[in-house]
Amino acid sequence: MRGLFITFEGPEGAGKSTQIQRLASYLQARAIPCVQVREPGGTYIGNLIRNILLNPECSEMKQRTETLLYAASRAQLVEEVIRPALARGEVVLCDRYVDSSLAYQGYGARWNLDDVRSINRWATNGLVPDRTYLLDLPVDIGEERLKMRGIKKDRMELKEKKFHERVRSGYLSLAQEQPDRYVVLDGRKGVAEIGEQIMQDFCLLAQLEK
Amino acid sequence: MRGLFITFEGPEGAGKSTQIQRLASYLQARAIPCVQVREPGGTYIGNLIRNILLNPECSEMKQRTETLLYAASRAQLVEEVIRPALARGEVVLCDRYVDSSLAYQGYGARWNLDDVRSINRWATNGLVPDRTYLLDLPVDIGEERLKMRGIKKDRMELKEKKFHERVRSGYLSLAQEQPDRYVVLDGRKGVAEIGEQIMQDFCLLAQLEK
Repeated sequence: MRGLFITFEGPEGAGKSTQIQRLASYLQARAIPCVQVREPGGTYIGNLIRNILLNPECSEMKQRTETLLYAASRAQLVEEVIRPALARGEVVLCDRYVDSSLAYQGYGARWNLDDVRSINRWATNGLVPDRTYLLDLPVDIGEERLKMRGIKKDRMELKEKKFHERVRSGYLSLAQEQPDRYVVLDGRKGVAEIGEQIMQDFCLLAQLEK
Repeated sequence: MRGLFITFEGPEGAGKSTQIQRLASYLQARAIPCVQVREPGGTYIGNLIRNILLNPECSEMKQRTETLLYAASRAQLVEEVIRPALARGEVVLCDRYVDSSLAYQGYGARWNLDDVRSINRWATNGLVPDRTYLLDLPVDIGEERLKMRGIKKDRMELKEKKFHERVRSGYLSLAQEQPDRYVVLDGRKGVAEIGEQIMQDFCLLAQLEK
């Protein structure tokens, strides 16, 4: 089998990690080598960059700095991990990629979308996923799920909600622009049902018998 | 007086810090507000990025990652420190700036110069220095000075030397392309003589009586 680069996108609470885990288990059961990575991070240097991005003392971070740091972490991940794995014919499952920057920084925070796109095109040397699974979820339901998990409870104010609405519709625009790459999944459905859809699509893509 | 953005470029050992210190003292004696910064770093976030760039455990760092990290540190410095200082009418003295990336990564390491240039144009939102003092020094003499200071002794092999030759001629090309911005100084001359040249030029630029 040739190497395949698969990314998972969508808001927190939509079930990306769960679905990555399911697909990874499926591949392992079939003895198909696979690599799981997450963004930002996924490498030694990327994790150091991640620490800066998540450091609460870095509240003074400017937009351009943030875009460049995400892109730096991504550049390292692509060249150190993703491209070598693809060259070995492995499947790479990546939790967030360029589309997250476009959705959150471009659509959500309304930074210049073309700038974010071209910085990232350079950072990744043009590496585009073979398939992107978008776990789409209405903002209210995502918030509910995070509340139940006890995450970010107090940051979900009205302003935050509008931001997340823009992120969601941004993702859907990206999916519409690239229907051959994107598969949009209804994140309200059950874990098993979504997992089944992903598995079916993946087998078609990889030309595997299910 | 209007704000002025002054950068100092050249190899290690050419005397940049000494000359920055002299110009800063001169400005202080005249009660002209000035800010001194260095790259990479110069801000809280920039110093965290600097730690990654200088971390010996980050030897796996890829070219694109390095370019993006330098640009991220620079973006933060420009927006957090340099632009506000210039807006207050202050003089900013900066030890290295975009030209260092062009000289070291573009000319020295032979990465794509246009890419390094355009990433940095975006990172700085197009902020170009009013004046750049290039302390030019033959590579052999720079090496001697570093040896005397006990720095980098064992890294000065033939390969390194060719690299530093390219950096030097790269700097001189940049200066030739932008003669209105660059002042090239002979780093072999004495500290006081170079300092005098800088002071004279600075006073003309700032329309100050000496």
